[in-house]
Amino acid sequence: MDDTAGLAIALEEAQAGYNEGGIPIGAALVSKDGKLLGRGHNMRVQLGSPIHHGETSALYNSGRLPAKAYEGSTMYTTPSPCDMCTGACLLYGISRAVIGENKTFLSGEAYLKSRGVQVRVVDDPRCKALMDRFIEEKPELW
Amino acid sequence: MDDTAGLAIALEEAQAGYNEGGIPIGAALVSKDGKLLGRGHNMRVQLGSPIHHGETSALYNSGRLPAKAYEGSTMYTTPSPCDMCTGACLLYGISRAVIGENKTFLSGEAYLKSRGVQVRVVDDPRCKALMDRFIEEKPELW
Ligand SMILES: [Ca+2]
Ligand SMILES: [Ca+2]
Ligand SMILES: [Zn+2]
Ligand SMILES: [Zn+2]
Repeated sequence: MDDTAGLAIALEEAQAGYNEGGIPIGAALVSKDGKLLGRGHNMRVQLGSPIHHGETSALYNSGRLPAKAYEGSTMYTTPSPCDMCTGACLLYGISRAVIGENKTFLSGEAYLKSRGVQVRVVDDPRCKALMDRFIEEKPELW
Repeated sequence: MDDTAGLAIALEEAQAGYNEGGIPIGAALVSKDGKLLGRGHNMRVQLGSPIHHGETSALYNSGRLPAKAYEGSTMYTTPSPCDMCTGACLLYGISRAVIGENKTFLSGEAYLKSRGVQVRVVDDPRCKALMDRFIEEKPELW
């Protein structure tokens, strides 16, 4: 799958999180050969969990994989990754991060790059619009 | 509670993980005023989870807390935190990391310090001995 298809899955996950009343952040982890390893969304509200962000949920839903499964992989995420998710990408040696938008917040991109991860920011207006809508509707959750 | 008591809880968690056949890494999150917020251990084997490390399990078991609950808090962990757990401590604004030992591996300590987190390495031989025993018994899991 290409970046458009990968980001579309992340956005579907973000929309699913929104529909559940949660924080609308989604992610998808795709292997070097274009296979979906896992997809997920932020579960802070749904599970009361501080560790299930979009990216970490995608990793969780990918299950326990050998280190080489992550080689050359790409993490698609709707906004820019936070410090925890940045660290999760580094821990598993994920090669690329494709980010829907980085206007809502900007955290780990420079550190990812400094550690050798390729970063692409798509600047997709659908990702930004979903976050804007959520923040306006539920400022107490953000 | 003091650092000896906090690290003792992390070590109990590590031992619990060992007893379950898992990776013997434990953690405890303690608030500014010395209250235990959560404790946990690595659940890679038990849950098949790549995101439940000692520190993230302690965060998970602390539940969803307001940002101010983490102010001045200390994360106790048996070995030095990995990149993901380093990022998790940064995300939540944890103030101190107290580390049982950093001989098994050394990952995020310098980055934690560069981001303003106080780091104390206790060099506790019980933490190292437990990891050594595990790595000798189950090299395939390490
Ligand atoms: Ca996220
Ligand atoms: Ca750990
Ligand atoms: Zn995150
Ligand atoms: Zn970790």
